[in-house]
Amino acid sequence: MEKKISDIVSNEAKAIDAIIEEFLPAEEGCAKTVMTAMNYSIHVGGKRLRPMFMQKTYEMFGGTDEEIIHPFMAAIEMIHTYSLCHDDLPAMDNDDMRRGKKSTHAMFGEAMGILAGDGLLNYAFETAIGAFDLVGDADEAGQIRRISRALGVLANKAGIYGMIAGQVVDIESEDKPAGEVTMDTIRFIHENKTAAMIESSMMIGAILAGASDEEVRTVEQIGSDIGLAFQIQDDILDITGSDDVLGKPTGSDTKNNKTTYVTLVGLDRAKEDVKTVSQRAVENLSKLPGSGSMAGIFLAELIGYLIVRDR
Amino acid sequence: MEKKISDIVSNEAKAIDAIIEEFLPAEEGCAKTVMTAMNYSIHVGGKRLRPMFMQKTYEMFGGTDEEIIHPFMAAIEMIHTYSLCHDDLPAMDNDDMRRGKKSTHAMFGEAMGILAGDGLLNYAFETAIGAFDLVGDADEAGQIRRISRALGVLANKAGIYGMIAGQVVDIESEDKPAGEVTMDTIRFIHENKTAAMIESSMMIGAILAGASDEEVRTVEQIGSDIGLAFQIQDDILDITGSDDVLGKPTGSDTKNNKTTYVTLVGLDRAKEDVKTVSQRAVENLSKLPGSGSMAGIFLAELIGYLIVRDR
Repeated sequence: MEKKISDIVSNEAKAIDAIIEEFLPAEEGCAKTVMTAMNYSIHVGGKRLRPMFMQKTYEMFGGTDEEIIHPFMAAIEMIHTYSLCHDDLPAMDNDDMRRGKKSTHAMFGEAMGILAGDGLLNYAFETAIGAFDLVGDADEAGQIRRISRALGVLANKAGIYGMIAGQVVDIESEDKPAGEVTMDTIRFIHENKTAAMIESSMMIGAILAGASDEEVRTVEQIGSDIGLAFQIQDDILDITGSDDVLGKPTGSDTKNNKTTYVTLVGLDRAKEDVKTVSQRAVENLSKLPGSGSMAGIFLAELIGYLIVRDR
Repeated sequence: MEKKISDIVSNEAKAIDAIIEEFLPAEEGCAKTVMTAMNYSIHVGGKRLRPMFMQKTYEMFGGTDEEIIHPFMAAIEMIHTYSLCHDDLPAMDNDDMRRGKKSTHAMFGEAMGILAGDGLLNYAFETAIGAFDLVGDADEAGQIRRISRALGVLANKAGIYGMIAGQVVDIESEDKPAGEVTMDTIRFIHENKTAAMIESSMMIGAILAGASDEEVRTVEQIGSDIGLAFQIQDDILDITGSDDVLGKPTGSDTKNNKTTYVTLVGLDRAKEDVKTVSQRAVENLSKLPGSGSMAGIFLAELIGYLIVRDR
């Protein structure tokens, strides 16, 4: 009997949880509270999409050395989680709930919500930089160069030319009258706040597996399309989804009178665009070497799954 | 006529300002606000001690390639500055003033105070990782290995096993009755919140210049002593200093009924300890190769200067 893609994705996420777990800090010492808060925010869960995209892209390009990719998988999820920690803060989106559980600051207090986020961002780099220790002195495969390139992408896409830029514009847009937020702004937010980290995940997978510069650029474009489709689908689910399934209140965008992709083009057009953009990603994927491999086929199915998901 | 050490230090700081400036982000694009807030917080100033210690340690160990050390100098100051941005937030120390100017969140709002800090921490790594691009393909000096080791120290000392740990324990101590905060706790805070970043600065200078593992360990000990002496002196200045000279209100520790090194051992003993710890640092420094060089002599004088400073 063929397994459902949602079950396969869910199993992959569990396997990734086990990998991430190995890299989380022990909860001990004088500053134990921040480690507990960091681990709590990771354990609240999530789809683990970023490490999943990273791992599968790595495998698609023929990467086999799990030890090298694992620290980066943990690192990208730590960065994603720090961004949620800080997004949920009272001065930002002021969310007390995240995936049906208390958000980090609601659980540990505001100071610890800030520090757990700082801790995760810093520890993400500490973890990824640790990949250098796995490379032998001979380094015949040029792994050191690949790791240093991967680190560059990790930092760039998470920072002020990537995810943080998206968050800044998102925050600033909330203070604007609805009419002033244009499609260009919405696209900038989605491209940076969401897509940049998917791009990063896939690019790092490709780089560490030894993909060419041109292949890495193609992968970046695919990640960009996946991120955009994913985020439009999120805007759609805020209107059509169920609170219980999502683990957070729907209709929050409407309630906050927030301009979204859907309010700008309407629900039907938004649904159409999710499909078009996803299909473009799948088509570009099919041109890459390794797209016919197990990992390549999984990636294409994962992209398809993301546009029919209900959470 | 011999120049005063305070003038020399001040001139060095100006030269470092010019170096840091080269690495600051251009204030442009949709997310311009965060770049402006980041640069503002850097421009508020400071003694630039961390990059100064880094540069002089690098030179003391015979390092000559300025291009390699400069990104790390900028990075360490960005990390120091992010920590101040976040420390000043309402949920943390709630300080509206910093060095006689508005603190970042007081100037740009709380959300931007958080994001500017995040931006600086991330950009610090982005900047330091950029050092890899300066190494040619041949890399006969093993610079790539040195940079990767330096990155490891940068991340480790700034994170949950360094600076962040100190901040966590500091925040938690504030909520405790005065009698419960022991000398062990105060030392843990100083060792991590302050000393870890001085250690990091000097270790990175040593590593990039090709110092041996043993030399790097000695440098770490020296940095630890300098950090402790520096922080005790800070506690002393909170009592004996002048508001105008310090650029921030003195007596804040007393007002907040805060346990400090001084409240635990008294002013006289604290002053004695600053001297003892500083002298130990100078003695250990004198055993290192290069301690008789211009940079080595400057470092010894800088340590002496820090314990007589009035700001």
